[in-house]
Amino acid sequence: MNKNSFLARRESLRKLMQEEKLDTLLISQPANRFYLSGFELHDCQCNESSGCLIIRADGKDWLCTDSRYEEAALTLWENDRVFIYRGRFSEELNGHLKDLASGRIGFEAEHLSCGFVQRLEPGLDMQAADGLAERLRMVKDAEEIQCIETSVALNHRMLEWLPSRLEPGRTEADIAWDIEKFYRENGASELSFPSIVAVDANAALPHYAPENPAELHENCQILIDEGCRLNRYCSDQTRTWWIGDSADPRFSEMLSRVQEAQRRAIAFLRPGITGAQAHETAAAYFASCGVSRYFNHSLGHGVGLETHEGPRLGPHSKDVLRPGMIVTIEPGLYYPGWGGARWEHMAVITEDGCRVL
Amino acid sequence: MNKNSFLARRESLRKLMQEEKLDTLLISQPANRFYLSGFELHDCQCNESSGCLIIRADGKDWLCTDSRYEEAALTLWENDRVFIYRGRFSEELNGHLKDLASGRIGFEAEHLSCGFVQRLEPGLDMQAADGLAERLRMVKDAEEIQCIETSVALNHRMLEWLPSRLEPGRTEADIAWDIEKFYRENGASELSFPSIVAVDANAALPHYAPENPAELHENCQILIDEGCRLNRYCSDQTRTWWIGDSADPRFSEMLSRVQEAQRRAIAFLRPGITGAQAHETAAAYFASCGVSRYFNHSLGHGVGLETHEGPRLGPHSKDVLRPGMIVTIEPGLYYPGWGGARWEHMAVITEDGCRVL
Repeated sequence: MNKNSFLARRESLRKLMQEEKLDTLLISQPANRFYLSGFELHDCQCNESSGCLIIRADGKDWLCTDSRYEEAALTLWENDRVFIYRGRFSEELNGHLKDLASGRIGFEAEHLSCGFVQRLEPGLDMQAADGLAERLRMVKDAEEIQCIETSVALNHRMLEWLPSRLEPGRTEADIAWDIEKFYRENGASELSFPSIVAVDANAALPHYAPENPAELHENCQILIDEGCRLNRYCSDQTRTWWIGDSADPRFSEMLSRVQEAQRRAIAFLRPGITGAQAHETAAAYFASCGVSRYFNHSLGHGVGLETHEGPRLGPHSKDVLRPGMIVTIEPGLYYPGWGGARWEHMAVITEDGCRVL
Repeated sequence: MNKNSFLARRESLRKLMQEEKLDTLLISQPANRFYLSGFELHDCQCNESSGCLIIRADGKDWLCTDSRYEEAALTLWENDRVFIYRGRFSEELNGHLKDLASGRIGFEAEHLSCGFVQRLEPGLDMQAADGLAERLRMVKDAEEIQCIETSVALNHRMLEWLPSRLEPGRTEADIAWDIEKFYRENGASELSFPSIVAVDANAALPHYAPENPAELHENCQILIDEGCRLNRYCSDQTRTWWIGDSADPRFSEMLSRVQEAQRRAIAFLRPGITGAQAHETAAAYFASCGVSRYFNHSLGHGVGLETHEGPRLGPHSKDVLRPGMIVTIEPGLYYPGWGGARWEHMAVITEDGCRVL
């Protein structure tokens, strides 16, 4: 991505700022910051920022960071609009925003800590303005779609290789580490989230992360939800397998219902429908099978620079699908104490439907 | 660690709450939460909490989390004081704190987002109360010291093995991945921070994380700063090596100065001195060599559940060393455009000095 791509995104953001009557917008959420500038996709820790952007109505945007990132900032940004803070970020930013005569300043209240904002605020006209960059990020441009396709392609390669590793005697933790090694040794920078590898009844626990990993055994179920980050962009897929020759008929029925729910949802996805309508397609099918109460999460979510972003595909989502959105379709059925199945692919919304990646 | 250890820590915290005239203290910072309860050391994301503790003057403490962690919470905590939120955490917590007649409520303002606190606050008497649990965490108990010693022991094993991997032609990224694999395949749950592997001039860049990793070559410098998390606790060490037979005399002089500064600082560490005095020991030695301007960071920091915690050993630190504190001693010299050396060990403060781990 070149500097013009990032600038074009900031111009789109300026239109949203105008609607919100903001003269200035502080961007501190890491994925938003990268999306608008190409600068640092990660913060070191939650309470340790790598820096922020000052987006201004007049187009003179600033990049603010500390001396660790000075060299990177000067390479990326017009040098007379790089602000390096040497002391306490919040207090120095307060002074800098005053010097710039920043007018009405929007900030990301769901991201900045309460203590940070209290030190930043004195003498400034500040107003919570969450979600503006996130609104833009929901629709991917051509470069982003290409990055995500590469990330999903590596994910598919991993999933083709993985069944050879699913042998009785190996543990959930062994397999999670196999997945991570495959990704890291094939170009991914990191996992997009910690892999879920869950045998039998563990598959019915949401976000299962075991202290005492279970072993695979002959004739068991295994649910694997995993993803990688490649070229900055995330992928996210889930499969559920039976290990062994004698699949429990109850497992086969559960899995084919989940796959049919996914097939129906994918066939229904198109511009103009809401996230709730997409969810309802899968939910209605499960209802027709009499298994509604075993489907206890949302159908899917957007994926991009973060694993979870807009739009939401869930029972209450008013998000309207548009071409260029990339979402997961991941129905599941979970039977506490016995097992569960989830089946997840990613798809990009096209002009008249969707294309599975 | 058993439930009594966590309870004893909460009793110590209650004394600090009394000094601050707090009836209730909300603990949401993940390491503080684990330290006081044994529940979840990590949050999924910065903006996605795994839960919080409500510490109360009357000793009736609550664990609040969502349904993903319900089973874990019920195993760990008295079941009639587990609060599972189903909707928006901030709003449900507001109602629950009102039901409990919580009096004056302290909260971690540097950790909770501004938006979260705005939804939490209505009708409650809330007051920022940061750093109370962190004050306790600075002094490690016997169980913690044992955990950290195990983590450092694995770190030493890795450092004994690593030189065999430092071959010309391999890249900084290759070596960082070697380090991660060694740790993960020998019991560590994760790195305690992304490894810094920096060849030649890259060693002079603070927190170097390369887009285009450099290759090792015959007769180069390499600085490696790395650590693992084992049994929940972090380790953190740095070494600097010359690769090849013909060490540049300037490198050898730089490294021996750094090692001598470390030796002097370690000899000086004992209960009662301040972090500033510890820093000054190394700084004064560098000054006597005329190289002060090449030492541009603090001497060290505490290590425990987080890689960076109290006490600080730096020029302005008023933290007073006490037995049971565990700190890094990591002087360094950096020559922009040419190279740098850092040499870091961890030590526990004893009754009359310190013991290097």
